[in-house]
Amino acid sequence: MYGLIGKMRSVPGKREELLQILFEVTTALPGCLNYVIARDPGDTTALWITEVWTDAASHKTSLALPEVQAAITKAKPCIAGFEFQIETEPVGGFGLPAAK
Amino acid sequence: MYGLIGKMRSVPGKREELLQILFEVTTALPGCLNYVIARDPGDTTALWITEVWTDAASHKTSLALPEVQAAITKAKPCIAGFEFQIETEPVGGFGLPAAK
Repeated sequence: MYGLIGKMRSVPGKREELLQILFEVTTALPGCLNYVIARDPGDTTALWITEVWTDAASHKTSLALPEVQAAITKAKPCIAGFEFQIETEPVGGFGLPAAK
Repeated sequence: MYGLIGKMRSVPGKREELLQILFEVTTALPGCLNYVIARDPGDTTALWITEVWTDAASHKTSLALPEVQAAITKAKPCIAGFEFQIETEPVGGFGLPAAK
């Protein structure tokens, strides 16, 4: 499996709008096992996104999907930047459809 | 919902053992919606744990469960430390049983 943990920063006052755009596109994308969008309770412009994909290729492919491209275009004016992004290698756990 | 993103560091050579202990205790704990255990691909002693709970109380309560206490005791000799831990406020996404 392939994972991502990232912190996204919105333009001030635009976090809820950004969250809604992310939320709408986060459906059953091919290869996506888990995609959690969270507010940072201590920072009104920060969102944390944690993702699990079957593999890195399915994540990369998803970025080219028309609905994802449309969401990126829509989200851009709300995004101030990306502060933290790491790749992980999820092994399993609870709530993953593919957990061993 | 209540979330945690944390980086745990194992004693050198003990990451797989630690991972296995965490993995075994990560079943349907009350209030746990998602618990993903991941290796850090760039650091042989690091694990990333991302958690989603119905609320902070259910996370706190879980720490007192006999099986969780037993796992903590078993894991302690494998743990070198905790490097990063943040609380989040998950809103939804894909793969959460309670996503709106």
